[in-house]
Amino acid sequence: MKSSCISLITDFGLCDEYVGVMKGVIAGINPHAKVIDISHEVCPQNIIQAAHILCASYAYFPKNTVHLAVVDPGVGTDRRIIAIASKNHFFLAPDNGVLSLIINRFCRAVHVTRSDFFMPKVSTTFHARDIFAPVAAILSKNEDIKALGDEIPIQDLITIPNIDPISKNNQLVGTVIMADRFGNLITNISEKDLDIIDWRTSACIHVGNHTIFGISTHYMQVEKGESVALMGSKGLLEISVNCGNAKQMLGVNIDDKIFVTQNKGLTKEP
Amino acid sequence: MKSSCISLITDFGLCDEYVGVMKGVIAGINPHAKVIDISHEVCPQNIIQAAHILCASYAYFPKNTVHLAVVDPGVGTDRRIIAIASKNHFFLAPDNGVLSLIINRFCRAVHVTRSDFFMPKVSTTFHARDIFAPVAAILSKNEDIKALGDEIPIQDLITIPNIDPISKNNQLVGTVIMADRFGNLITNISEKDLDIIDWRTSACIHVGNHTIFGISTHYMQVEKGESVALMGSKGLLEISVNCGNAKQMLGVNIDDKIFVTQNKGLTKEP
Amino acid sequence: MKSSCISLITDFGLCDEYVGVMKGVIAGINPHAKVIDISHEVCPQNIIQAAHILCASYAYFPKNTVHLAVVDPGVGTDRRIIAIASKNHFFLAPDNGVLSLIINRFCRAVHVTRSDFFMPKVSTTFHARDIFAPVAAILSKNEDIKALGDEIPIQDLITIPNIDPISKNNQLVGTVIMADRFGNLITNISEKDLDIIDWRTSACIHVGNHTIFGISTHYMQVEKGESVALMGSKGLLEISVNCGNAKQMLGVNIDDKIFVTQNKGLTKEP
Repeated sequence: MKSSCISLITDFGLCDEYVGVMKGVIAGINPHAKVIDISHEVCPQNIIQAAHILCASYAYFPKNTVHLAVVDPGVGTDRRIIAIASKNHFFLAPDNGVLSLIINRFCRAVHVTRSDFFMPKVSTTFHARDIFAPVAAILSKNEDIKALGDEIPIQDLITIPNIDPISKNNQLVGTVIMADRFGNLITNISEKDLDIIDWRTSACIHVGNHTIFGISTHYMQVEKGESVALMGSKGLLEISVNCGNAKQMLGVNIDDKIFVTQNKGLTKEP
Repeated sequence: MKSSCISLITDFGLCDEYVGVMKGVIAGINPHAKVIDISHEVCPQNIIQAAHILCASYAYFPKNTVHLAVVDPGVGTDRRIIAIASKNHFFLAPDNGVLSLIINRFCRAVHVTRSDFFMPKVSTTFHARDIFAPVAAILSKNEDIKALGDEIPIQDLITIPNIDPISKNNQLVGTVIMADRFGNLITNISEKDLDIIDWRTSACIHVGNHTIFGISTHYMQVEKGESVALMGSKGLLEISVNCGNAKQMLGVNIDDKIFVTQNKGLTKEP
Repeated sequence: MKSSCISLITDFGLCDEYVGVMKGVIAGINPHAKVIDISHEVCPQNIIQAAHILCASYAYFPKNTVHLAVVDPGVGTDRRIIAIASKNHFFLAPDNGVLSLIINRFCRAVHVTRSDFFMPKVSTTFHARDIFAPVAAILSKNEDIKALGDEIPIQDLITIPNIDPISKNNQLVGTVIMADRFGNLITNISEKDLDIIDWRTSACIHVGNHTIFGISTHYMQVEKGESVALMGSKGLLEISVNCGNAKQMLGVNIDDKIFVTQNKGLTKEP
């Protein structure tokens, strides 16, 4: 019997019963589904954060995993629910941009409308329990989005605005998009973006009131308590403090700008 | 082989090893049991909160799920441990009121005394590991509470005081019983309670210093940042703020009163 | 097919995708492995806390469980990754002391070097995803550490300093090593340590500015809000407040000293 994984990203937190109830519904429909939590601590209604978490995660899951991403401030309105099939993965989410970073032209999408797959009584405020969970359970069994509703063009889906870094005058201007539990500041600057400058040997990074010279390979390359820039495990430039919290110690927040230039002989500032 | 689900509600939190150790014990006795967390973030020793979470959750789990609810300030005393069989579910908990909201006259109860099912050494402070977990694992295999101890009358079980709303003079007086991660204020007022007034079209709701007119169907029916009353996914009246935190923004707390009257031509207060 | 459990202890928290991604990797390599979280809320980089949590937990898991403990401030340096086989359990961790409390002379250890078991691309900052998770998944299938690398002598492993309590002049001086969610203060004093005094009947315990007389068997042996000393479920002396938070109410912190003497007719201080 097929037994796909189902991954979960929500903004429900773990204090309330919401996530457990979703899993109860899934277990009733597909007892063989392995359900794996990615995060339930997305900030309430923060679609962009959920999109980044999904983008950093999905590729590490087994083939045919159903990735369920429910950050859904429009629950109960006529916003669409969509299912996406990519080459190796399925995605199920409200059509509000949460899938922006995984959509490409090789994906197929359907508008999920097969209400006989929903719970008998659908509330107006908890579609995760009444629609998303049962549909994910069914998708983990039949592994075919076509059964869920009519196909819709990928280009019709709602996407979040482009957040790529901007390059001009030999300066790369990026943004801090996330901070993790350790206070590591994750930016939107990828290794490819850094190719415009001779980055590893001569990058000069400005963030907040701080300047960091060079890009290191691991935290302990600097002393404890010192800031360090490195290519993180998501393939994105990160600013960290060795054995410390960069977010707190540098006073930098999500959405703050980060500037990368080429170091032309500057010495480290005091 | 049988492989019932086991659901877990505790006040143990997720920082310590307590929940993981319970799952280790269960896995050793019934490797096929699917264990699903409902919540471990019940406020320490808050039996009433656990009772509400269980009541809102259990019906969404597969038939014959063993629901384990351990909020147990009396651990180590002679308080009883009880197992309940209802039509479709099993429940295992200390006899302290945590099962109050799921008990009805169709249930059967036993006093759990079969110490050969317990861990070889039973501590005085962690019965969840030493008694509840192994007994739940056994119950998830044999699906029969009679093996656990002698039957006791349902009416002998400890229950929490009645918390139904009070209706008088065309006014319904309820209570805020929970606030969720989003700050949604969940009351003890059900749809049935609201039938006494022509509620959907003309309800007038007072909570804290705020008045809300009418009962909406979803959050986005009001502007962002505005308060809204709606029938939540638990079938209970909830007070929310669209894309905001009602608990914080309205300054309302658990156990605060909420008043529902019929709106007789009043206009919205400034 | 073999399907060992894998237990997880990390300092990753549950807000970010790190733990979910590890589970995705494991599910892809051994779909039959049952993964159980012990804790992901170890304080960042706190090796000693993780060592204690592991020590209190592992024995409750099924035989041949793979216990994965990733608190790894040296990630990306040349610190070793080690796998340990004890009589009934496997352990996988960085060689930084996190396994100190489970190592004994009956264990065997290997230096994990079989890079064909790692993810194809190994990052410098997330070995939990790229090395530990896939190796744990393989170990849960083959249950043999010898396949992972060359054997190394147990005595070569890095250990944390001895933390046993000190006994002199009929006084036992211990340390508060952990505080749990309830504020219970867990010390390094075991029942065996207490055998030097006639402990149950006449122990006198000083911690912070407080004195507690005698060792109780359960919380409710004292009034609500009163402090109590008892042998906790880990087999260690704990200081608690019945239905209260000892850490907050007594103003005691981790690493504070605790003194146990014999009560020679002293009366309770005001």
